[in-house]
Amino acid sequence: MNTDELTMLTDFYEITMANGFLNEGIGDRIVYFDMFFRSVPDGGGYAVMAGVEQMIEYLNGLRFTDGDIEYLRGKNMFSEKFLDYLRGFEFECDVWSVPEGTPVFPGEPLVTVRGPAIQAQFVETMILLTINFQTMIATKANRIARAAEGRAVMEFGARRAQGAYAAVYGARAAYIAGCSGTSNVLTDKKYGVPALGTMAHSWVQMFDSELEAFKAYARNYPDDTTLLIDTYNVLRSGLPNAILAFNEVLKPMGKRPKGVRIDSGDITYLSKKCRAVLDAAGYSDCGIVASNSLDEYIIRDMLIQGAKIDLFGVGERLITSRSNPVMGGVYKLAAVEDESGNIIPKIKISENVAKITTPCFKQVYRLFDSGTSKAIADVITLHDEKIDASQPYELFDPEFTWKRKRVEGFFARPLLKRIFRKGKCVYESPSVEVLREYCSMQVDGLWEELKRFENPHKYYVDLSEKLWTIKNDMLRTYTVD
Amino acid sequence: MNTDELTMLTDFYEITMANGFLNEGIGDRIVYFDMFFRSVPDGGGYAVMAGVEQMIEYLNGLRFTDGDIEYLRGKNMFSEKFLDYLRGFEFECDVWSVPEGTPVFPGEPLVTVRGPAIQAQFVETMILLTINFQTMIATKANRIARAAEGRAVMEFGARRAQGAYAAVYGARAAYIAGCSGTSNVLTDKKYGVPALGTMAHSWVQMFDSELEAFKAYARNYPDDTTLLIDTYNVLRSGLPNAILAFNEVLKPMGKRPKGVRIDSGDITYLSKKCRAVLDAAGYSDCGIVASNSLDEYIIRDMLIQGAKIDLFGVGERLITSRSNPVMGGVYKLAAVEDESGNIIPKIKISENVAKITTPCFKQVYRLFDSGTSKAIADVITLHDEKIDASQPYELFDPEFTWKRKRVEGFFARPLLKRIFRKGKCVYESPSVEVLREYCSMQVDGLWEELKRFENPHKYYVDLSEKLWTIKNDMLRTYTVD
Repeated sequence: MNTDELTMLTDFYEITMANGFLNEGIGDRIVYFDMFFRSVPDGGGYAVMAGVEQMIEYLNGLRFTDGDIEYLRGKNMFSEKFLDYLRGFEFECDVWSVPEGTPVFPGEPLVTVRGPAIQAQFVETMILLTINFQTMIATKANRIARAAEGRAVMEFGARRAQGAYAAVYGARAAYIAGCSGTSNVLTDKKYGVPALGTMAHSWVQMFDSELEAFKAYARNYPDDTTLLIDTYNVLRSGLPNAILAFNEVLKPMGKRPKGVRIDSGDITYLSKKCRAVLDAAGYSDCGIVASNSLDEYIIRDMLIQGAKIDLFGVGERLITSRSNPVMGGVYKLAAVEDESGNIIPKIKISENVAKITTPCFKQVYRLFDSGTSKAIADVITLHDEKIDASQPYELFDPEFTWKRKRVEGFFARPLLKRIFRKGKCVYESPSVEVLREYCSMQVDGLWEELKRFENPHKYYVDLSEKLWTIKNDMLRTYTVD
Repeated sequence: MNTDELTMLTDFYEITMANGFLNEGIGDRIVYFDMFFRSVPDGGGYAVMAGVEQMIEYLNGLRFTDGDIEYLRGKNMFSEKFLDYLRGFEFECDVWSVPEGTPVFPGEPLVTVRGPAIQAQFVETMILLTINFQTMIATKANRIARAAEGRAVMEFGARRAQGAYAAVYGARAAYIAGCSGTSNVLTDKKYGVPALGTMAHSWVQMFDSELEAFKAYARNYPDDTTLLIDTYNVLRSGLPNAILAFNEVLKPMGKRPKGVRIDSGDITYLSKKCRAVLDAAGYSDCGIVASNSLDEYIIRDMLIQGAKIDLFGVGERLITSRSNPVMGGVYKLAAVEDESGNIIPKIKISENVAKITTPCFKQVYRLFDSGTSKAIADVITLHDEKIDASQPYELFDPEFTWKRKRVEGFFARPLLKRIFRKGKCVYESPSVEVLREYCSMQVDGLWEELKRFENPHKYYVDLSEKLWTIKNDMLRTYTVD
């Protein structure tokens, strides 16, 4: 499968609707769609936005081949007018997005698409797929990296990833959100995410003895000698053999070992034993690498119990976000323009209050305390609304409007940046290094109470008075019985 | 990302080991690796093999570009001899695999690779990635399709899939294992998996009223009118409007509606109400489609409570295998050949008994009862061992060897088929239709006790006496204390 096939990676209903919109004469009506999510994975305090670069790649690559048109014609469902439209398809939408690496919260638009109904509807599936997955992995990686409290975390999950894209782009998202690198060579080659790796158990088994295997590895990689010491028995075989190899191969070359890796057993216990033995043998600079079904909860427990680990290799539980493998982002119609260009808000009602959408063409402002530079709240506004930071600003809970809070001494930053103007990309994706640094700074700007793994403080995401009034008036109108 | 980039989708350690094997003069040593898994997802009784066609595509596409070589040279870790080897890389391995759609069990080889160490090691990451993911989804889809008890199940999960490959190949695997189709257009175009879909809530919102939206849809798709009836209120608005649209648009054309879809609320309750109203309105042939966070457990409960549903649309819980999103397949060295071509078995010991590997170059036979044609047991043998079905065969548990069972009146089928001979593919992947039919027949050949969602009967996977003896002798030799 190739990137140029992604145009057809869409839900069938996007095509039936597009054809219907065109035939009904409303295909070129200007509409606004928002992508947002309703709850943070793992019950955390915030998610970390990712996947924008791949969303841009997809949007830039939108085109229908003759083969695509033939396939669709074969369905006997679509008008020739529509197939002609697809043949000449040119993306014309405006797109705004929150930049990758930004902490984001439920209910606020992460992506807004404005354009002809036929187009803005069509891109739903791939926008959701791309942002949902990478945001989920970035969110998980950020939790795991925080659990490691400054120690390096490597993403090691390719073999258990849900497909090749997940392996490559999951590793990218994990790096942006705080991992130190990956085992995935292609992610390094494509994006410069540092790739690392040394040996599997099969390396050890290919030699007549564990010691021979270790010495061979040290000979080949004297500057990068990390030995996997659990093929037979960590304390009785692996560790003593590793020290022998360090002494016999590296020492005469004047080289120092990088580390030993433990991939099974009670790693907390083994790491403490290994640390003591390595220190006694004069290798206090030799790191200890732990892998084997780790995640934020296990890493936290290991460190509480005093594990002596310098680098965590995290596999399946990161690359699949195993404890919460679905990011439920949705893409909803927020407004349409009438013939004169007036924006008519649209709302989706639901008996489930959390599923009611917020209408209108919107912007999101993050308010930071001027003294501490910590984020106080996000305010969703009409797109052209400004927040005057020279005046006190009154926040209020959109559900419980009597909960009010007056903020002063703050500055406000808009989160949605324009990335497409009339179908042309106007945004340059930063490198993963820049995004990683940006993410780290933005997470630093959140209060610690938001960073708890369980029961974090709930961050305020409020509506401006104007937007709240529009939404509330619409809700009143729609109320049945 | 494109298929021709997949050669570099590998763990970095595959490359450090390959380079090391070459430099140590053991790169061309012939080795045997097995891919197998240790436990069935969701605690089920069996998994369903899938992903072979994509594994073949990957193996056929193995080649290193100049860019790949330059990237690797830049690491300053690899010998020029190795980089030369990669430049002229030609895949030379023999590969055996269990065909897609086959029920498979823990501990038995699903894929065996025989070839030069440098190559057989290198392909580990992508073989695992490909087979793990599709097998996991096929296994989940088979459970969900069985829960639906003959009703159609459509795979609707693209927007929540873990990346684009997961969306496309997950939909393929789901179809093989029993789903009736997908929402994913690209999977239909590439593999002929029937794609379906009608409208989102946004279609309804784009018109002045729900009724107008329904009538417009029926006008556009008189032969495929399925209406989404929960945008406002299913019973008070959606269903009456759907019936009006059927009466006013379809009836005059002599057309019948296909269905109504419910995507929220208490679907069991709503489906019963809808059924009664549709029947009373003369639309007893109009189907009811249910979607919204379904899986095998919810479908089972809905049907127990008498839900009137004809088609289930299953999204995120299928495409991510949400309740068990990791398939833990591994790839382990099983044997090496000496200079004279003798096969030397290799074993990986672990304190965790379940993690001890089974050595040797192997075959797997499935024994079927001649009378019922039901599968009795799988027997792992040496590759060239034959099972003589004309004689009684004694099965025994490899752990508890006193558990013995004598079988008579059976026939035996080898499961591992050769798919590559000296690097050339010698297997033609069947169409998804053929695989789906094959899978259905193979699952029919399992006892019902294996098909329980929880606590299924444990299927026998035994070792032949010869293989057991080799393994046991090796275990005795390795035992340290």
